[in-house]
Amino acid sequence: MPKSLSGVVVLDLTRVLAGPYCSMVLADLGAEVIKIEAPGTGDDARAFGPFINGESAYFMSLNRRKKSVTVNLKHPKGRDIVLRLAAGVDVILENYRATTMDRLGIGCEVLRGINPRLIYAATSGFGHTGPYADKPCYDIVAQAMGGVMSITGQPDGPPTRVGASIGDITAGLFTVIGVLAALQARHLTGEGQKIDVSMLDSQVAILENAIARYAVSGEVPGRLGNRHPSISPFSSFATCDGHLILAIGNDGLWSRFCRLVGRPELANDRRFATNDDRVCNWPELEPVLSGIINQRTLDEWIEVLEAEGIPCGPINTVDRVINDPQVVARNMIVYTDHPRAGRIFMPGSPVRLSAAPCDQPEPAPLLGQHTREVLSGRLGLSEIEIEELARAGAI
Amino acid sequence: MPKSLSGVVVLDLTRVLAGPYCSMVLADLGAEVIKIEAPGTGDDARAFGPFINGESAYFMSLNRRKKSVTVNLKHPKGRDIVLRLAAGVDVILENYRATTMDRLGIGCEVLRGINPRLIYAATSGFGHTGPYADKPCYDIVAQAMGGVMSITGQPDGPPTRVGASIGDITAGLFTVIGVLAALQARHLTGEGQKIDVSMLDSQVAILENAIARYAVSGEVPGRLGNRHPSISPFSSFATCDGHLILAIGNDGLWSRFCRLVGRPELANDRRFATNDDRVCNWPELEPVLSGIINQRTLDEWIEVLEAEGIPCGPINTVDRVINDPQVVARNMIVYTDHPRAGRIFMPGSPVRLSAAPCDQPEPAPLLGQHTREVLSGRLGLSEIEIEELARAGAI
Repeated sequence: MPKSLSGVVVLDLTRVLAGPYCSMVLADLGAEVIKIEAPGTGDDARAFGPFINGESAYFMSLNRRKKSVTVNLKHPKGRDIVLRLAAGVDVILENYRATTMDRLGIGCEVLRGINPRLIYAATSGFGHTGPYADKPCYDIVAQAMGGVMSITGQPDGPPTRVGASIGDITAGLFTVIGVLAALQARHLTGEGQKIDVSMLDSQVAILENAIARYAVSGEVPGRLGNRHPSISPFSSFATCDGHLILAIGNDGLWSRFCRLVGRPELANDRRFATNDDRVCNWPELEPVLSGIINQRTLDEWIEVLEAEGIPCGPINTVDRVINDPQVVARNMIVYTDHPRAGRIFMPGSPVRLSAAPCDQPEPAPLLGQHTREVLSGRLGLSEIEIEELARAGAI
Repeated sequence: MPKSLSGVVVLDLTRVLAGPYCSMVLADLGAEVIKIEAPGTGDDARAFGPFINGESAYFMSLNRRKKSVTVNLKHPKGRDIVLRLAAGVDVILENYRATTMDRLGIGCEVLRGINPRLIYAATSGFGHTGPYADKPCYDIVAQAMGGVMSITGQPDGPPTRVGASIGDITAGLFTVIGVLAALQARHLTGEGQKIDVSMLDSQVAILENAIARYAVSGEVPGRLGNRHPSISPFSSFATCDGHLILAIGNDGLWSRFCRLVGRPELANDRRFATNDDRVCNWPELEPVLSGIINQRTLDEWIEVLEAEGIPCGPINTVDRVINDPQVVARNMIVYTDHPRAGRIFMPGSPVRLSAAPCDQPEPAPLLGQHTREVLSGRLGLSEIEIEELARAGAI
């Protein structure tokens, strides 16, 4: 059964994370992704540890299902290869700074001049317009400047980076959305267009209700730790071996919880009797609950709380996530068999389409693994021509 | 100029955040979104504060550009309206628990039996398969169970909830991607399909390199504060008057930084020469860098680092985000003029398409604002028939 994006060909000039995450999502959906890498070194992420037999796990998890073609973009014959490949693909992705592609002679106007059906998608730190257009950016800069760090962390602690690279990843996801929307538009117009997604814009877009709250109240949203502003207890607690989320949304559940933990008097304590009391007197309630919760293991708590219908959940560490029965049942952890690194696992695609069942991904490519195949198959170059390009340093 | 999703009609049965975020993105791209709401109360989010003249800012920021039609899904005539509307739309979105739509008699098989071109997209806490399929889920539970909280926070602090609701929002984004991929597939096959995206799966998918690191090392990733696990230096540092983000992603930038700060020997120091060295020897590098950075002010550092092209930035609070020159230049804050709440601002769409310039969004609808328009225009119902449905409690 063909996948949703079968027949869509993507020329992928991206490196590191935001762009490669975008092309990974497209590849998982069935697009053919031809990854262009610098000869010798390749994608910067090939140098990011940890390594297995010299292969970067970081790189391998993001570049499954892709083909690797080495092209020296600074070499005239390298540029020529990109121009010729761009003439025959649907989408080109790049995550250079705003002016780099133009400087290399392979900017949007040049490429779309050759191929008007081409969808040109740029993912950059700050976008291709505005005063910061040509500034460099990394995940933590986008998280910092976009506001999410200012609302993440403990109330008495510092602004905190989100442990997952959401600065890159959300920009990658919005770029996927732009590419797919442009594919839909092309069915109507016959023409491609340019997509310009920035990491900073993407961070602003996910702030949503923090901006809405500020718009109404004029109060700058701060950090709340894990606490809910108006429901209590609705937070996280340390067990003796992990962390538990406890979400007690009404007084009936609170009474039931108090009986369950052998402290029925707490439900009648005037400091804690109603939700409002518990919110107001949280500084007194918090140490009491902490003392109760840290008496048992996480698994024990989940079992007894679920049996009583008290909303709860574990705070899973990564080892527990990948072994969680639901994660396992959904096949969210996938494996690739890499020719050098062997079998490794990584998160799969969360986009489940009924007409395209999940399958095992092809492993990430070795550097230049598909150079000959693509140059021969797509451009009709002979062995001799390919050898000459290699000798000239163009591939 | 038509927008990318012009002509795409979405019947939107979602409430609160994950689903409405998905339909907001589709509406921003030009889809016609018909939001179905319960008569009398509407989307639960209409009751979430803060309010302006009784209108929820939370609701208004997520539901711009949508039409509101009241339908009582538990009333046979209400169900009939959904069935008739579903026959003529491209996409149906729902974020109920896994079995709810079937129980209401408007499940995927029924709707796709009526309209084989229909794309049925479900966003749920745990997905429609697996042992947790029918469990309820909150954003904090998805963040907790999916692992991101375990890697967010200070090394000596607790697991930390991401301040933005990424449990909901990432699921919404992956659902958009599924819908658009299915639209592309429909051009080839003529048929719709079912999309099943879960909040938990989506959290696993954004863990990416945390899972890769665990796969290689067997070490459970912990909390690193603002430090990056595999790139260094890539963190926040105290200047003499504030906090600076410094993001040096490769060895070339590192050399340039070392020369800039008058410490060229650091670039040749074998402890710090390569990114991997700097990651491994962070405990030795950190005090050296802190001693350098706290010699100047935040503004001074940003000026000298930017002049050298070294990625850096301030940590912005929400008030600073919305006034940032780049955010303003990109029109990332948009305004709507709501008939009751007046003018309010909210984050705009970060998906910039060259063929569809940004415009001011229509405000979020009043409850049932478009009931007559849609029932008359799409189903051809007369005034009298609509009155009868209202009297019967079906709309």
